[in-house]
Amino acid sequence: MTGSELPGVLIASGPWAPDDWAAPFRREQPHRPLMIWPDVPDRNDVRYLLAWKPPEEAFEGLPNLEVIFSLGAGVDHIVGVPNLPDVPIVRLVSGDLAQRMNEWVTLQVLLHHRQHLDYARQQASSLWREIPQAAAPEVRVGIMGYGELGRAAASVLRPLGFNLAAWSRSPKEDADIPTFSGEAGLSSFLARTDILVVLLPLTNATRGILNRSLFERLARNGPLGGGVVINGGRGGLQVEADLLAALDNGTLAGASLDVFEPEPLPTTSRLWLHPKVVITPHVAATSEADIQAEWIFRTIRNYEAGRPLPNLVDVARQY
Amino acid sequence: MTGSELPGVLIASGPWAPDDWAAPFRREQPHRPLMIWPDVPDRNDVRYLLAWKPPEEAFEGLPNLEVIFSLGAGVDHIVGVPNLPDVPIVRLVSGDLAQRMNEWVTLQVLLHHRQHLDYARQQASSLWREIPQAAAPEVRVGIMGYGELGRAAASVLRPLGFNLAAWSRSPKEDADIPTFSGEAGLSSFLARTDILVVLLPLTNATRGILNRSLFERLARNGPLGGGVVINGGRGGLQVEADLLAALDNGTLAGASLDVFEPEPLPTTSRLWLHPKVVITPHVAATSEADIQAEWIFRTIRNYEAGRPLPNLVDVARQY
Ligand SMILES: NC(=O)c1ccc[n+]([C@@H]2O[C@H](COP(=O)([O-])OP(=O)(O)OC[C@H]3O[C@@H](n4cnc5c(N)ncnc54)[C@H](OP(=O)(O)O)[C@@H]3O)[C@@H](O)[C@H]2O)c1
Ligand SMILES: NC(=O)c1ccc[n+]([C@@H]2O[C@H](COP(=O)([O-])OP(=O)(O)OC[C@H]3O[C@@H](n4cnc5c(N)ncnc54)[C@H](OP(=O)(O)O)[C@@H]3O)[C@@H](O)[C@H]2O)c1
Repeated sequence: MTGSELPGVLIASGPWAPDDWAAPFRREQPHRPLMIWPDVPDRNDVRYLLAWKPPEEAFEGLPNLEVIFSLGAGVDHIVGVPNLPDVPIVRLVSGDLAQRMNEWVTLQVLLHHRQHLDYARQQASSLWREIPQAAAPEVRVGIMGYGELGRAAASVLRPLGFNLAAWSRSPKEDADIPTFSGEAGLSSFLARTDILVVLLPLTNATRGILNRSLFERLARNGPLGGGVVINGGRGGLQVEADLLAALDNGTLAGASLDVFEPEPLPTTSRLWLHPKVVITPHVAATSEADIQAEWIFRTIRNYEAGRPLPNLVDVARQY
Repeated sequence: MTGSELPGVLIASGPWAPDDWAAPFRREQPHRPLMIWPDVPDRNDVRYLLAWKPPEEAFEGLPNLEVIFSLGAGVDHIVGVPNLPDVPIVRLVSGDLAQRMNEWVTLQVLLHHRQHLDYARQQASSLWREIPQAAAPEVRVGIMGYGELGRAAASVLRPLGFNLAAWSRSPKEDADIPTFSGEAGLSSFLARTDILVVLLPLTNATRGILNRSLFERLARNGPLGGGVVINGGRGGLQVEADLLAALDNGTLAGASLDVFEPEPLPTTSRLWLHPKVVITPHVAATSEADIQAEWIFRTIRNYEAGRPLPNLVDVARQY
């Protein structure tokens, strides 16, 4: 295919700048029809939709749509759309993304484990005082969601010496850490967990899973005297009121949150100024548009050359 | 040897509780003479000295002294003593110590790399704003001192993806990261370093090495726009006035300090409240008295059974 025969691309990148995602197409295939939502002269031209938190209308009336690409690892912004076109959905899986999430997860685990919030408060009052400190092998980290990002997190937490386990939907036979799965395995997993690292997708099955009942099942006999919840997945996983109550009554010793519902986190939320909470503004692992756009561009070329689509989402499972 | 024939042990543990260090001897060999400084009925009885920041007098008039044990990894508190007895000095080297230092180093590297101080300030004003973020492979971490602790630090920073190099006194042929050595290699090492992790011993050769000239030779074109200095070694390595000046004029983008001279860091020090500085009160890797006392106890028994002493200090090198 050459020139204007090339199938068209529609970019609906919501809050993100569309130009970054358009760049490789403009540079390498200037003849390919490229549309930036909401500017779609002829909907028949749209063969590929590149989407990040798109408006519902972006999916409508596209008779020739063949593939939807999510501009992030999560697809909760797509799979919940009413009348979702019945075409394959490809999501981002990349070493760069996993490595960035590894940095964030490791930082947050160590912040709580090494009692940084307390030391920072001591520093602010020029106070020199040692706080008793457990070593990593005495700390049980539980990774909730053992997919691309969960497994990557294990690979960096293990060399630090933490006592690891993981929980997922389907059983994992070949894991090199203890694994638990499904509703049946959840309570045992939580009971052996001091620091919970959440890397789940948001689906009907996981929405609100970080609630009072879960917090109360976490270990209470760990070095920090209460559970720690680190959520790098999606805001809809956590019930904010339950989280605040558990932090206030001591069920939880701390939390690190990168994701919220809604985002930005409203300035009125009590989470912002809670002394046990670390907040980052959904930056744990940001898709680097240039790298990822390049990948999507190559994937489309490969697809047009007859190769299979990678990283396909199971729409029934919603991830 | 049994009963009161056993050679005596003197514990001079400075600011630390002596009982922890005495415990295995009291438990396993109640007949061995055990003295706690300054309570030394007969100096002739002292065959082993277990020392942490001991007063100079603790070394004097011990005609039968055979071995000095340092209760920490560093021996600067011993090797500088005037009229140091000419006996072997054994220092602590332990997996537990290295693992704890790994936690501290990784936390501090990630705190600066992930711009935590800026995000914490944003959180304190309920501000949701993304800050541009480099990925670990774009960040050059330089490990200064590539001994037990430096090599351990590399083993946990490598899986996170940082671009590593190290500097030591003697050349390292077999290292799996680029290495530099001696005065001749220092400038090249610094020029490729964005984040400097200092795990050097304090000796005549290293005292004051973290000074203005060194800070100015660090890379200035890194993602943070200035060098970051992370000192887990000894306070005497850094020139505090030079450090503050370099932080103030932008040569340095940040610092994390666990060690100071003197300790505790005086409340009058400007370091305490500097917005680019993270301070911990010499807790990076605390010798766990029970584990380490057990090790010293076993080492003495092995020595008395004719086995060689491990972890010997080279007094001429001072480490
Ligand atoms: N904060 C950020 O910057 C950021 C960046 C990237 C991604 N994320 C979030 O991270 C999520 C995970 O990404 P990923 O690439 O690791 O996804 P993934 O490879 O699909 O892994 C998802 C994991 O969650 C498990 N899981 C899903 N539903 C479950 C359920 N109902 N019960 C138990 N386990 C369940 C899966 O179990 P199975 O193994 O049995 O399938 C799998 O282990 C994304 O969906 C996205 O929301 C956030
Ligand atoms: N903050 C804390 O809680 C804490 C806890 C434990 C230890 N420490 C400090 O950490 C220090 C390092 O411990 P370690 O067990 O890693 O010591 P180590 O095994 O003796 O390693 C020391 C390293 O420093 C290098 N070095 C020494 N003098 C040098 C010089 N003049 N120029 C260049 N390189 C030099 C050595 O070079 P070579 O390889 O060529 O010999 C070696 O690589 C200790 O001395 C102690 O002060 C602090």
